[in-house]
Amino acid sequence: MVQQQQSALGKRVRKADALERVVGEARYGADFSLPGVLYGKVLRSPHAHARIRRIDYSRALQLPGVVAVITAGDFRTGGAAANGHAVEGAYDPGHEEEHAGGGRPNASRVVFASAKALWAGQPIAAVAATSLQAAEAALGLIEVSYDALKIVETAEEAMQPDAPLLHSNLFTTTVGRTPEKPSNVATYIELARGDLERGFREADVVIEDTYRTRMVSQGYLEPRATLAKVDPDGKITVWSSSQGSFGIQQQLSEILDLPLHQVRVIPAEIGGGFGSKNQGILEPMAALLAMKTGRPVKMTMGRDEEFKAGRPGAPSSVFLKMGVKRDGAITAAQVRVVMDGGAFPGGPVGAATNLGLGHYRIPNVRIQGYDVVTNKPPVGAYRAPGVPQAVFATEQHMNRLAEAIGMDPLEFRLKNVAGEGDRLPNDAPLPRVGFRTTLETVKKHTLWSKRPSRPFQGRGIACGMWIGGLQPNSCFLKLNADGSLGLEVGTVDLTGVRTSFKQMVAGEFQLEPEDIIVTTLDTDTAPYASGSSGSKTTYTMGTAIKQASDSLKRILQERAAALLDLPKEQVAYRAGAFHSVSDPSRDVSLKDLGARGQAAGGGPILATGAAGTFKAAPSFAAHVVDVEVDPETGKVGILGYWAFQDCGFAVNPTLVEGQMQGGAAQGIGWALTEEYLFADGVVRNPTFLDYRMPTSLDLPAIEPTLVQVPNPESPYGIRGVGEVPIVPPMAAIANAVANATGVRITELPLSPERVFWAMHNK
Amino acid sequence: MVQQQQSALGKRVRKADALERVVGEARYGADFSLPGVLYGKVLRSPHAHARIRRIDYSRALQLPGVVAVITAGDFRTGGAAANGHAVEGAYDPGHEEEHAGGGRPNASRVVFASAKALWAGQPIAAVAATSLQAAEAALGLIEVSYDALKIVETAEEAMQPDAPLLHSNLFTTTVGRTPEKPSNVATYIELARGDLERGFREADVVIEDTYRTRMVSQGYLEPRATLAKVDPDGKITVWSSSQGSFGIQQQLSEILDLPLHQVRVIPAEIGGGFGSKNQGILEPMAALLAMKTGRPVKMTMGRDEEFKAGRPGAPSSVFLKMGVKRDGAITAAQVRVVMDGGAFPGGPVGAATNLGLGHYRIPNVRIQGYDVVTNKPPVGAYRAPGVPQAVFATEQHMNRLAEAIGMDPLEFRLKNVAGEGDRLPNDAPLPRVGFRTTLETVKKHTLWSKRPSRPFQGRGIACGMWIGGLQPNSCFLKLNADGSLGLEVGTVDLTGVRTSFKQMVAGEFQLEPEDIIVTTLDTDTAPYASGSSGSKTTYTMGTAIKQASDSLKRILQERAAALLDLPKEQVAYRAGAFHSVSDPSRDVSLKDLGARGQAAGGGPILATGAAGTFKAAPSFAAHVVDVEVDPETGKVGILGYWAFQDCGFAVNPTLVEGQMQGGAAQGIGWALTEEYLFADGVVRNPTFLDYRMPTSLDLPAIEPTLVQVPNPESPYGIRGVGEVPIVPPMAAIANAVANATGVRITELPLSPERVFWAMHNK
Repeated sequence: MVQQQQSALGKRVRKADALERVVGEARYGADFSLPGVLYGKVLRSPHAHARIRRIDYSRALQLPGVVAVITAGDFRTGGAAANGHAVEGAYDPGHEEEHAGGGRPNASRVVFASAKALWAGQPIAAVAATSLQAAEAALGLIEVSYDALKIVETAEEAMQPDAPLLHSNLFTTTVGRTPEKPSNVATYIELARGDLERGFREADVVIEDTYRTRMVSQGYLEPRATLAKVDPDGKITVWSSSQGSFGIQQQLSEILDLPLHQVRVIPAEIGGGFGSKNQGILEPMAALLAMKTGRPVKMTMGRDEEFKAGRPGAPSSVFLKMGVKRDGAITAAQVRVVMDGGAFPGGPVGAATNLGLGHYRIPNVRIQGYDVVTNKPPVGAYRAPGVPQAVFATEQHMNRLAEAIGMDPLEFRLKNVAGEGDRLPNDAPLPRVGFRTTLETVKKHTLWSKRPSRPFQGRGIACGMWIGGLQPNSCFLKLNADGSLGLEVGTVDLTGVRTSFKQMVAGEFQLEPEDIIVTTLDTDTAPYASGSSGSKTTYTMGTAIKQASDSLKRILQERAAALLDLPKEQVAYRAGAFHSVSDPSRDVSLKDLGARGQAAGGGPILATGAAGTFKAAPSFAAHVVDVEVDPETGKVGILGYWAFQDCGFAVNPTLVEGQMQGGAAQGIGWALTEEYLFADGVVRNPTFLDYRMPTSLDLPAIEPTLVQVPNPESPYGIRGVGEVPIVPPMAAIANAVANATGVRITELPLSPERVFWAMHNK
Repeated sequence: MVQQQQSALGKRVRKADALERVVGEARYGADFSLPGVLYGKVLRSPHAHARIRRIDYSRALQLPGVVAVITAGDFRTGGAAANGHAVEGAYDPGHEEEHAGGGRPNASRVVFASAKALWAGQPIAAVAATSLQAAEAALGLIEVSYDALKIVETAEEAMQPDAPLLHSNLFTTTVGRTPEKPSNVATYIELARGDLERGFREADVVIEDTYRTRMVSQGYLEPRATLAKVDPDGKITVWSSSQGSFGIQQQLSEILDLPLHQVRVIPAEIGGGFGSKNQGILEPMAALLAMKTGRPVKMTMGRDEEFKAGRPGAPSSVFLKMGVKRDGAITAAQVRVVMDGGAFPGGPVGAATNLGLGHYRIPNVRIQGYDVVTNKPPVGAYRAPGVPQAVFATEQHMNRLAEAIGMDPLEFRLKNVAGEGDRLPNDAPLPRVGFRTTLETVKKHTLWSKRPSRPFQGRGIACGMWIGGLQPNSCFLKLNADGSLGLEVGTVDLTGVRTSFKQMVAGEFQLEPEDIIVTTLDTDTAPYASGSSGSKTTYTMGTAIKQASDSLKRILQERAAALLDLPKEQVAYRAGAFHSVSDPSRDVSLKDLGARGQAAGGGPILATGAAGTFKAAPSFAAHVVDVEVDPETGKVGILGYWAFQDCGFAVNPTLVEGQMQGGAAQGIGWALTEEYLFADGVVRNPTFLDYRMPTSLDLPAIEPTLVQVPNPESPYGIRGVGEVPIVPPMAAIANAVANATGVRITELPLSPERVFWAMHNK
């Protein structure tokens, strides 16, 4: 054990799991199996909107190798165990709209269509068979009688008074009003302050426009995969590649109507999630198939299934009207955000309304948000959900306003920057934040004095914020007999957090990260961990780790004092040992204390950390991009990309930079090439050939600059870092394209065709 | 969650793991595998004592499928990584006596013979191959040049001045003397008090005799099995069916010369251990093969290998001379215990000398103990190691003395019973114990007034004690969001302790055992647990569980008080909820507290328990057995068997009774049929056909009676229960046979042949 003076905190430590991932030893969702396993496959609706008359799976059951078929009938009432209404071999859903999942809404959204199919790709039935081939063949033997219904393709259509209703029992959730009839609008939000009309009257320039973004895929490398088994006492164990085992446990408990402690979720390594894998999709089906067959059931999704029935990022339209004075002060903003949630409520309208303009100080504001259902795949979270969509509008508008008053876009932003004490649209005050510092860092950067100057080249800047999650995290900490420390968490490692946790414990004890063993446990064994989402894990677990470390040190200080025969105040810790303050040569090592603790007469040395109450620590980013547009094809080439971000404190700068680069890379995909294409409600491009994500050849070197304005609520100053980097890129690129071409494009993606025609039509 | 007033403590709760064991889902050592696994097999010495000139495994390496061969050369210096002295393909040990394991004694005893083979069955080399068949075939291609040496077969031979020495570097360990030359006596112990000669002079009757027991197998159902793999960063992971993961980790760390945190030991379920599986045998070899090949390696032992190279119970001879007055007072005892440790030091001479007569108050005592090496398989622990051997002598002697003075054997024991404040031979005072109560319980039992009375029928009684282990244990405890509790331990469940732990937590919180999830973690993740041996786990972990429960309740009381808006003293707990003391209808449930703890603003609810300092809590047993001897064959039939034992407090009476019955059953095997037979040092009966353990058809119903004299040091009054039941049976049966036949047999087993000839020769 090499001891060091310099802290492991803040170092570019190699990822703890790097080697095992590289050599293929990391076990992802599809790497788990069990003796006697069955393979599950899902039959999906070919229709985007249809009534289901009958599902006849009697022929499927006769296929050799097929062991069970399940439909919504298996979830119908009283939980998974009940199957009273379904005759074995067929399911007649009747006329109830949504009884799948026994009326539990969370259930009906991830299991099977019942009386109606709501999107093309929605699960209708699942088969478990002794081979994947038999399971796939059985799907073709399931006969489903559909009556096709008129498809609601867009949120605009869905909001028309005469639009077909997707759900007969969906009433708009809103504050202060009780809706009388069902609607395709699931949620309506309104945030307001000041006097909007007066604000616009005070403005010298008012600009309004509508901006549109498309449905996008998180594009995680690993498609969903799960394995479920039932213990002889009825307990369900599920191996799941998700962002949070406890969330999946909760979901399974609700859907299967089992108490939490009858459901054990064991986390697999995860090959990307980006918010989408907060929810389980296959897990409830695999568990029900296991319960029905008494055998382990393994299910995986193909990439096409991911496109048709994953949980993509929401399409949006944002109407925006803003007024500004000649001196650069923004006087008013009116925003109307419409999020298309797909087949079920869930469009990320909350963050979009609150954070789309939250980074600026605007006296008069009115923001309306709508979450609308349509016959498309239901959306899920995608990195800072809702905010990239809103900021695509607001940060283009910022440039347009700056241009209109002849002000430098960076100066214009600095003029209106929100800081400590300013209030978000939802009236929450901002704590100490680093937005101004971030913008000033951009201004001081050498890049800001060198602009691309050739024809069809241009520069764009855009900013954005993310508020950060505040859910609890906790840990167990133990001292081993060799002086190493073990940290047990329930956290799924999405972004390298095991490495950061190691560094934090190592930092607390002035040890090397190699001396810390960090292990992710499952729901039965782990101290509670909220899901790895919301850009909070390092912040919140950091507080828990600090607590546990302090607590362990208190125990150790007493033990060391007793061994050194000193009062405990006379004993201090440094780099692996406690020593006498007055005579540092008298010391007792962690190793000795650990070994004694495990010997007779000792007592193992354990501590816990549990953190539940946090204050928000918003993170801010500013991205700058230089582009060159090919006037003959409309193709946008990226010449340079700079990401600036306040991370509070970077426990591991390499990991923070990775998040910044990854977020920017995904944003470049949204900006230039990515979009779901539909025909009659069916995804037309459900492959990575036809859904075009940027490859390494498409991407520039994304140059990260860390800004560190400490979060006073974190013992280490940490802010969340994972989400905000996807907020600015789309607007930044659109601003750059406008700067390069003089053409303002308000709809994503900025594909060659769209850019070409926009230039051509100018 | 059904709540109850009556405590789960003391109930006959079904074993938590019963169902999964019954249906075959419990995963034992051999149930683990990994992709790309290799199979390891061991070449063993055919000689009980031989010099090894050369091991040539070049031909073995050429066999298709063989990936690696290892010998002592691979452990030679500086740990497992070094292999400098062995040419690949052959190993020439030279003339060093014991350098296997790089001079680490713990290493050399479990890995390979180096310059000398010390017993027939000792590992010489191990092969890893892609199939078990190839590995086995390769063993036949390894050429070993041996020079046979004179075999030392018995401890008596080994102690002769001119006996060949097994180890040139073994010097007798003893207090106050520095031996000048090596010896086959590994340890000499002497305990004395009073004036032995005066004691014998004061006696009215003096009897002396020598008693002998044989090498016996623990006979666990599951032969040893292990799987080892090496992570890409060099960390070793070993799945091991052992009695204590942390012990195996320590052993591997020493043998492989790796820091503890580079070795992870994952416990498998265990199919019996009885002390023998405290030590790993295959684990170091599998780990080294994995390190050498870079692939996972699985190794299992056949039953014959278990007999030839397991760690059996030690054979012994005990010379005993005791004096008694006519009034029944014992005046003096002289004991000379010789334990045959097999090829390495390890005969259980400490407990034999201290506890063989520890249950009686004897003023004048001299006890000598010898641990002697011989060319037999090295012994291991076997349930109360050493004490059954000593008690086979002492408790027969007790009956002989009682008979000589015409006193009832039970009254004679009651007259001399040791109690609180009396000192063991090693001078340790006894705390409050239940020996007298146990004997009085026998006396009051209906059986004691009804004796078998037909010819060749007889009754025997014998008693015994076990001091109990005092090593630390610890646990993590957490409250889940459904009000269930999770307990994490590192304890291997040998005797149903998971069930007892459940009951303890359930008892503390007045819940049902089903509401408690108990999980055994591995060395990376578990709070430290000492091995499941020494009859201490329920006692010591009970203290840790009580600590953790109290600590969790303190947190919960504060949370509940805050929710109820009361000072915490005004809040009390009962059966799943905290309530206002003044208005019990105002309450907050565990479930609510758990769910709030995991919600934003809450904070997970965790606690630890760590217990390291304990006082001894000896347990005492008295067994009564009725037998009928067939005079024509000498076969001993058991008519009835009654076991009485002070368990302090039975957390789960069924589990305690199971230990009592299991110990008695094994003792019956020792008494009547079990023994290793050797020819030229080679085990002649290495199968369960030829080594005769009692089957269910051989065994009577063993009727347990629990005596409960609480251990004041345990919050529940618990004493260890697993070991003492094997102490009395051999002497009890020998006493019954003497009572039935008038023949005193001093050598085990009391096989038909031995009993017949003893009767015939009388």
